Amino acid sequence: MQARRTWVSLAALWCVILSQQAWAQVAAQPSLAIMPLPAHATSSTGEFILDGGFEMVFTGYTEPRLERARLRFFDTLKSSTGLRRWPDATTPRPQFVIDTRAASAPVQQLGEDESYRLEVAPTGVKLTAPNPLGVLRGLQTFLQLVHPTPGGFAVSSVVIEDKPRFPWRGLMIDTGRHFMPLEIIRQNLDAMEAVKLNILHWHVSEDQGTRIESKLYPRLTGMGSDGQFYTQDEVRGVIAYARDRGIRVMPEFEMPSHANALYVGYPELADGPGPYHLKRKFGEKWGRERKPSEDSSMDPTRESTYIFLDRFLGEMAALFPDQYLHVGGDAEDAVTEWATNAKIQQYMKDHGYKDATALQLYFTARLQKIVASHHKTMVGWDEVLQPETPKDVVIQSWRGTDSLAVAVGRGNRGILSWGYYLDLNEPASRHFSVDPLQGAIGKLPPEQQKAVLGGETAMWTEYVTPETIDGRIWPRAAAVAERLWSPQEDTNLDSMYARLDILSQYLTYRGIPYKATRELMFQRMVGTADPASLKVLAGVVEPPTGFPREGERAYTVYTPLNHLSDIIPAEADRARQFRDIATRIAAGTATPSDHQLARQWLTLWRDNDNTLQPLLPQSPLTAELTPISHNLSETAKIGLKALDALEQHHSMKATDQTDDLASLKSMGEPIAELRVRIIPGVESLVQAAHR
Amino acid sequence: MQARRTWVSLAALWCVILSQQAWAQVAAQPSLAIMPLPAHATSSTGEFILDGGFEMVFTGYTEPRLERARLRFFDTLKSSTGLRRWPDATTPRPQFVIDTRAASAPVQQLGEDESYRLEVAPTGVKLTAPNPLGVLRGLQTFLQLVHPTPGGFAVSSVVIEDKPRFPWRGLMIDTGRHFMPLEIIRQNLDAMEAVKLNILHWHVSEDQGTRIESKLYPRLTGMGSDGQFYTQDEVRGVIAYARDRGIRVMPEFEMPSHANALYVGYPELADGPGPYHLKRKFGEKWGRERKPSEDSSMDPTRESTYIFLDRFLGEMAALFPDQYLHVGGDAEDAVTEWATNAKIQQYMKDHGYKDATALQLYFTARLQKIVASHHKTMVGWDEVLQPETPKDVVIQSWRGTDSLAVAVGRGNRGILSWGYYLDLNEPASRHFSVDPLQGAIGKLPPEQQKAVLGGETAMWTEYVTPETIDGRIWPRAAAVAERLWSPQEDTNLDSMYARLDILSQYLTYRGIPYKATRELMFQRMVGTADPASLKVLAGVVEPPTGFPREGERAYTVYTPLNHLSDIIPAEADRARQFRDIATRIAAGTATPSDHQLARQWLTLWRDNDNTLQPLLPQSPLTAELTPISHNLSETAKIGLKALDALEQHHSMKATDQTDDLASLKSMGEPIAELRVRIIPGVESLVQAAHR
Repeated sequence: MQARRTWVSLAALWCVILSQQAWAQVAAQPSLAIMPLPAHATSSTGEFILDGGFEMVFTGYTEPRLERARLRFFDTLKSSTGLRRWPDATTPRPQFVIDTRAASAPVQQLGEDESYRLEVAPTGVKLTAPNPLGVLRGLQTFLQLVHPTPGGFAVSSVVIEDKPRFPWRGLMIDTGRHFMPLEIIRQNLDAMEAVKLNILHWHVSEDQGTRIESKLYPRLTGMGSDGQFYTQDEVRGVIAYARDRGIRVMPEFEMPSHANALYVGYPELADGPGPYHLKRKFGEKWGRERKPSEDSSMDPTRESTYIFLDRFLGEMAALFPDQYLHVGGDAEDAVTEWATNAKIQQYMKDHGYKDATALQLYFTARLQKIVASHHKTMVGWDEVLQPETPKDVVIQSWRGTDSLAVAVGRGNRGILSWGYYLDLNEPASRHFSVDPLQGAIGKLPPEQQKAVLGGETAMWTEYVTPETIDGRIWPRAAAVAERLWSPQEDTNLDSMYARLDILSQYLTYRGIPYKATRELMFQRMVGTADPASLKVLAGVVEPPTGFPREGERAYTVYTPLNHLSDIIPAEADRARQFRDIATRIAAGTATPSDHQLARQWLTLWRDNDNTLQPLLPQSPLTAELTPISHNLSETAKIGLKALDALEQHHSMKATDQTDDLASLKSMGEPIAELRVRIIPGVESLVQAAHR
Repeated sequence: MQARRTWVSLAALWCVILSQQAWAQVAAQPSLAIMPLPAHATSSTGEFILDGGFEMVFTGYTEPRLERARLRFFDTLKSSTGLRRWPDATTPRPQFVIDTRAASAPVQQLGEDESYRLEVAPTGVKLTAPNPLGVLRGLQTFLQLVHPTPGGFAVSSVVIEDKPRFPWRGLMIDTGRHFMPLEIIRQNLDAMEAVKLNILHWHVSEDQGTRIESKLYPRLTGMGSDGQFYTQDEVRGVIAYARDRGIRVMPEFEMPSHANALYVGYPELADGPGPYHLKRKFGEKWGRERKPSEDSSMDPTRESTYIFLDRFLGEMAALFPDQYLHVGGDAEDAVTEWATNAKIQQYMKDHGYKDATALQLYFTARLQKIVASHHKTMVGWDEVLQPETPKDVVIQSWRGTDSLAVAVGRGNRGILSWGYYLDLNEPASRHFSVDPLQGAIGKLPPEQQKAVLGGETAMWTEYVTPETIDGRIWPRAAAVAERLWSPQEDTNLDSMYARLDILSQYLTYRGIPYKATRELMFQRMVGTADPASLKVLAGVVEPPTGFPREGERAYTVYTPLNHLSDIIPAEADRARQFRDIATRIAAGTATPSDHQLARQWLTLWRDNDNTLQPLLPQSPLTAELTPISHNLSETAKIGLKALDALEQHHSMKATDQTDDLASLKSMGEPIAELRVRIIPGVESLVQAAHR
């Protein structure tokens, strides 16, 4: 009773109704270093000091999942503070009261309420939510707010009222191309919980492997997985683990292309004569030679294909409780192949299909009926969208918001993944700036816009292994998580990057070990030497963006991904910071400390080659860095020269400037699949130095 | 056949018989960066290049444990190189042949053969061992030898013939004072395997908790563990995990002192009236007030005590297959208490015991009979040794080699732990320099010396948590591991420290995460700030040695151990390196690079306070560092002044020198439980600067 009375009075004190416009103030609060930003927040003075003694008390509805959330909460807190819990209090202790109104659905539903209200005051904390999902969200908000203060670890007083902008906020992980052990799946579910993502899109079949055990078709994994697959018990474990974190799990079985692994054990499903082998190379679909034994497509002409799909998808529909089932639908290869396959051409002629696309439509329609017969809603990539596509099919768009607008315009619902592909190694700012309601969709009536359910960030795994994947997904996926959760007005990149850095640390406390793994990978490149100078180089280079590895090396599933280009983050923070400073210097808006920092960094980069070069011949992994380390030094020299000119207010000679820009351009070419990312900043300086 | 022929010729090539004297050459080989150093090794030119393709082939005896060792081997190799295995070779591949002659004992025996022969050549590797234990040892040797070369990751050609000096090489972990989760136990078993330790001494009962489930006495953990204990299934899991790594597991049940947790559920075992509570404080035994409810001893006068011990130890004897059972025997508290307990005094009078020590002897004799009746060999600390102690009791000495010599002289066998207590925070050099056969033992006849079975390094856990324990055990425990495995002639400290550093990296590849955990703990001390300057300070300070926390704060099991003094390694490598350099400078034997480095470091330490001070008020964890950060700066200033004088060949004024030495002395006092460990080096410089 006492606790409740306290809370009523606090609520009265803080009773502030925030308009949508007031949201801009939320983002400006430095103490709100949370990702994603909440919908509404009001800070006040004071703080709730954490020690080993505060109690967590559940009122209202409760369930074992909440108790597990409590244990997880204290585990994270132990990691982020080092505090140890006192199990037996002898004095009254401050309380963290969690009031849950009711249960959530037995199987998490799309669009279920995830809202919560979090009130933090010096005397206690109250978290209120309509159901356990909101509690999970609110606990993560609280945990991210923990920071050291002169009084100890604390959370500053604040009232947060929060709810998501979109109901579908996903991460897709491709476990087909490179298998990802359960540990990786669990780590990603932990990180997803941290940033309030609510659906794991589990891509489990590819040319390189079928990754989920089928009891009905044991050869799917027996012959088509290299022994790397998830048992059905393990799948159930993942689903339970995800549910504990308020995350749905939707599997994707890719067809009629990218399904070669199915045919190794069941060649009758394919349109060629077989036999089939697991494909171990990547990239052929982008124009290389195709081998019939590794690149066939599903045969849409045989009734036996649909009998298989009915039984197999029925088994999977029973295994995965989620309402949605993804069947891929990427048919770009299939359509090409069917159009040149004599048997299939004959079938098309006999049955009046005017082209392979028409046949694809027929295949998709059959597939949709099968999925529906198992009481699931079908999800597919853009390719499954045709005018005739049933309206309940959800379209996942990798093509863009225009394509999504077409889907929505036709009455289908859609989710956006274009702009959110993490494997393309684009900067977080790029992902953050893509809004699901942008472009053509923004011009649709609001009711139709509601058919855009949200989006999914995606990690395809040609070029990542279990060792590197977390460092490529995180923390950047949080930029997408914020885009999908937070108000549309949340567009401040500086704030986003500052919080992304803090989040990255939070994920470390949360047990996602990508920072430590990266340290390990740097160290082994240099053996027993000090990796410091390697890390200076690593801090300003980036791996290729887009699909640039296609056509370069013959990457297979066994290619060691232990080069510097595999290890580093997709985005070099230090290089970005330098570019920002250089832009200000070039524009004449820089502070003295900008100038000082630019000079310090450029000097470090100029001199780093001296320290690093002696280490490089020790190993092929470092030897390939010899020219780029040299280029970094040369780039820095050019930058220092331009900085001198700017600071001494004398103009560079035009010919020097031309030479320097030409040098920078040539040094901007990739070496060892790396690009020196301070070059654009140095270019700005050089350009500004001649005015 | 082909493989075998290759190997015969290689063996012929390398057939070198090494004398014990040739061992000094082994230690001098820089490519042999292994811990512990092998008994014999002969390097030759060339190397075995690792890629994803070499096969591991077992010949001779085989068993599932070897297959698991193979998987573990490739896991470690993946971590230390990033290479990925090719599962289907189409071309002949180089081979790693493992030839095992026969099985080892079903339960690992003390003194079982652990020898192996490892031949590494460019064309292949051969590991030969009498039984799987030698294979496990040899695989760890090979893995530690992997390093980057211009041709790729490789192991240099070498022939190693290796076997341990002592058969008993242990690590004791106290899981009573602070419970250590299974994950920690497993990590330590992994690390023990890496350095060829072969017995985990699992200290599972203390005043703070009984940590192993008893089916017969469920209240032992039900009331006496705070819910933190190992189930019997978990214990069996640990034993199996250890056996896979060639490690025995011996439990210790401490009595008649340090057993308070037993009495919470079973008060009739104690000599007081009860009721009893779990003790949550540490240190009372060192002179503080004792509470009868938390500090009682076992009642040796009641027959029911022995009935309990018979049944309980019988249950534990069945659970732990090892031949040895440790019953503690630490009776210092009990003897004091019995001597003042009226009931027990009466009993002594009635039964003719002249003093409490005589009663202790009676208790120990009964205990030994119980242990023997369950077909186990009793192990106890020094206190159990009396002239009448049965000869098969093994004495573990925390008192020293003189005490051990007494035991051996009386016909008992012994193991040394004195000099090997890791929780005392002494340098690795100290542990490394303690030889089990030193002192009085060295003067005994060789046959008696054989009764010294080896030693155990020990980690008592008053001041470590699951978060910090690994960073305090490792890598220093490896110095003891080397002392117990490698030839007695192996005494080069520089070599030991150089290899300890490399081993530390190997343990990271092996999955022991203490380096990453330490980074996490540094980061959280400074919140979102850059911890670089904190780490500069951390690099030259050390926590208290000995038992100095006694009497300072009221440490309980819940005290957060998240201060800098908890986080840092026991030994500050950088400070040690500086002291070595300063010694050379003071002696006039330094190189120019010594001088340069000393100046660089002193300048860094002088200036670090400027960067660090602004961060310190943010949190109590850093605020307490304010004076020591200042002292580091002042110490460095004094050092620079002395260095200037030495380099400019002018003598400091005697009064300045006196002042400086006085300042250094006062700054050498502990602050925030930390000592600035460059002070002795700076003292050397100051002393040398006035000659």
